[in-house]
Amino acid sequence: MNTNEIPYKIYLSEDEMPTAWYNVREAMKNKPAPLVNPGTGAPMAAEELEGVFCKELVQQELDNDTPFIPIPDEIRDFYKMYRPSPLVRAYCLEKKLGTPAHIYYKFEGNNTSGSHKLNSAIAQAYYAKKQGLKGVTTETGAGQWGTALSMACSYLDLDCKVYMVKCSYEQKPFRREVMRTYGASVVPSPSETTNVGRKILAEFPGTTGSLGCAISEAVEVATSTPGYRYVLGSVLNQVLLHQSVIGLETKTALDKYGIQADMIIGCAGGGSNLGGLISPFMGQKLRGEADYDIVAVEPASCPSFTRGKFAYDFCDTGSICPLAKMYTLGSQFIPSPDHAGGLRFHGMSSILSQLYHDGYMRAVSVKQTDVFKAAEYFARVEGILPAPESSHAILVAMQEAMKCKETGEAKNIVFGLTGTGYFDLVAYEKFHNGEMTDNIPTDEDIAASLAKLPKV
Amino acid sequence: MNTNEIPYKIYLSEDEMPTAWYNVREAMKNKPAPLVNPGTGAPMAAEELEGVFCKELVQQELDNDTPFIPIPDEIRDFYKMYRPSPLVRAYCLEKKLGTPAHIYYKFEGNNTSGSHKLNSAIAQAYYAKKQGLKGVTTETGAGQWGTALSMACSYLDLDCKVYMVKCSYEQKPFRREVMRTYGASVVPSPSETTNVGRKILAEFPGTTGSLGCAISEAVEVATSTPGYRYVLGSVLNQVLLHQSVIGLETKTALDKYGIQADMIIGCAGGGSNLGGLISPFMGQKLRGEADYDIVAVEPASCPSFTRGKFAYDFCDTGSICPLAKMYTLGSQFIPSPDHAGGLRFHGMSSILSQLYHDGYMRAVSVKQTDVFKAAEYFARVEGILPAPESSHAILVAMQEAMKCKETGEAKNIVFGLTGTGYFDLVAYEKFHNGEMTDNIPTDEDIAASLAKLPKV
Repeated sequence: MNTNEIPYKIYLSEDEMPTAWYNVREAMKNKPAPLVNPGTGAPMAAEELEGVFCKELVQQELDNDTPFIPIPDEIRDFYKMYRPSPLVRAYCLEKKLGTPAHIYYKFEGNNTSGSHKLNSAIAQAYYAKKQGLKGVTTETGAGQWGTALSMACSYLDLDCKVYMVKCSYEQKPFRREVMRTYGASVVPSPSETTNVGRKILAEFPGTTGSLGCAISEAVEVATSTPGYRYVLGSVLNQVLLHQSVIGLETKTALDKYGIQADMIIGCAGGGSNLGGLISPFMGQKLRGEADYDIVAVEPASCPSFTRGKFAYDFCDTGSICPLAKMYTLGSQFIPSPDHAGGLRFHGMSSILSQLYHDGYMRAVSVKQTDVFKAAEYFARVEGILPAPESSHAILVAMQEAMKCKETGEAKNIVFGLTGTGYFDLVAYEKFHNGEMTDNIPTDEDIAASLAKLPKV
Repeated sequence: MNTNEIPYKIYLSEDEMPTAWYNVREAMKNKPAPLVNPGTGAPMAAEELEGVFCKELVQQELDNDTPFIPIPDEIRDFYKMYRPSPLVRAYCLEKKLGTPAHIYYKFEGNNTSGSHKLNSAIAQAYYAKKQGLKGVTTETGAGQWGTALSMACSYLDLDCKVYMVKCSYEQKPFRREVMRTYGASVVPSPSETTNVGRKILAEFPGTTGSLGCAISEAVEVATSTPGYRYVLGSVLNQVLLHQSVIGLETKTALDKYGIQADMIIGCAGGGSNLGGLISPFMGQKLRGEADYDIVAVEPASCPSFTRGKFAYDFCDTGSICPLAKMYTLGSQFIPSPDHAGGLRFHGMSSILSQLYHDGYMRAVSVKQTDVFKAAEYFARVEGILPAPESSHAILVAMQEAMKCKETGEAKNIVFGLTGTGYFDLVAYEKFHNGEMTDNIPTDEDIAASLAKLPKV
């Protein structure tokens, strides 16, 4: 098909939407390492995990072999309320940059949670409901995951308790109100409502919190309250599985117009968006059917891929979670209260960690001030006000497009625009007022945190 | 076509998008009354209006006869960045209400301005650019119009000065930041930067402002600064013309699936959304080709249709604008600092006023607290967090659907969901905390204001 015919936005029809999630682990020779019991050092058995997570999600978590897992009809119906998301051809950005590259972005922000997080939230809430649970607990950083889960729980009539990283809770009071609109209870973390919260507060009285702290609190409540389980918006294998809808839709849209991607770029905090976006493409790459330059973009303030260590570590600060093998800065690493709250996690998805370790993708870290420059540029040209998290990918996509301008290559660059920045205007204000800084950890900071890695 | 086949969201393809705006005035036997010069009492000539508005927009303002006015390619290209907007079948809402009615909403919120306002903003900015102007001035209430205009001006590299109603400026600091992101300058109104602002402040020192005040200031700056013109986000004939894209897309989508609308419901402040949504349907109704029950929903706190007078009045508080014949509460009416800022205008589109006066549509007014109840209900069921303005239409659509439940009628109810409520969370918070009140003017309030209508 002639590329002139590519519309600004490619929308799939409902019957082109995926009917099954794709499990990229099936194509991996080196499977992601299993979660490990910190007490025994042995891989966590399904029965152990079922105390924390819903049964069916545990199965998905442990299944390294099934390529396609059907999406239940109830979840597909929910998806139809806000999906398919558009694959946008960034005609205006290309023109403004004067690049021969063709830039595409999969825009996941057109729903009230403001991000891709809803794709996994509805799946996790669905399995909790199916299991007959009363409710779920979780943590949220920027608030996107908490909002998404609140929406899903409200739809399915499940109780929802959200532990929100304290600095985000304070920076983003409106996020809290959205969650309340959807009937969730929201507690700033660390809090006095849990043992682990009280312990962290006693040790670090002025702490602004972290995703790691909030996870500890949510897990404690889930495992000590009958009828509750814990759900997590990133990192886990199951989450990447659900998020594969992003990549599957992207691939169907590209295939429909005969477009072969050269690069795929995504921001990476815990890896949910990037992992979902690249899944089907990575599957092809692992099978040797196609080659893609796959790039993870992380904040210089929390650089787990580029400056972390590939090791077993706790997913939480309070050390009550299982250990995951991943690129980590150490579970005691508390990143600066940066504005890309969704990327402030010390670790990384085990799947992506393994793929990165095996050389199937690369990673770059970028500075916050550069990210906001790119965000504002993009907003003015493409109309969409991007989330700070998503803007990490925008920056690198623009840099790559400018390289194409030098070389004259007409590469097809695809990136994930995970969400909108409507709740990030305190950060935009700081940027406009010249008050934003880059808080990059020193080598000593990281070494000190890595020194505390658990011995496995 | 079997209605079972109707998807959750009907998206038109790019080539199904309208290529011309529809001018409903062509079908009106009683044309809207012309704008009048307050000094002479004579209809404003084109040359007079051109001191305030761009030339081509003046032509559109005065053209009561041309049925279709082509949309310039540059505007169509911009539309393609965020349009077509989806026509959503509210399957979940229907199910939850247990109504036999079929509910559809045209959702205009999936763009960064958060509303339909962008449809006219890009058109007005385009004609300003074409005329070689340096910039434009405007007012904004809730901030949706100001954001939309900022986006359009940024895209076309025009300067943009926004006078923002003071109470909105204070309630919505984030709106200001979005506009700054798009390079606009934003001034709380009334301000010390204009003669009319200083006069209003001297008379009412504690005023929280109104759209009427902000219009006066923006007009003063436009007419006293070389290379500038004033643009307005509602009320004017030209705005309803541009907003006809909403109705045209809606009609194409309904026709595509063989759906005959029975009712069309929209919120009405100045009339831009409602006027645009109903345009092609009203055209049919005026020609006797089809019948529709068309309903304007306005806030009980600012009820121009239901409690105002059909008379010539100023569009602004400072009495520097031309007079328009419309349903008005009097230009000196300052509505309570209600949260549906976009509906806080004392007057109403002349086109809609004439149609209402001639019996082609009806109007209802609703209380703010009921509106927020409906908004929260809708958010939980349909996923979208609606703007308070849009929620006026939601409330009445739900009420009508419940009437169908009693009568067993399977009516097709179409309403306009003009925007999202991401910047209205202060209002949602008040609602959650039980602190929201209904500020309904007394008969004496309205009579006092109407007593000051200009003599024409």
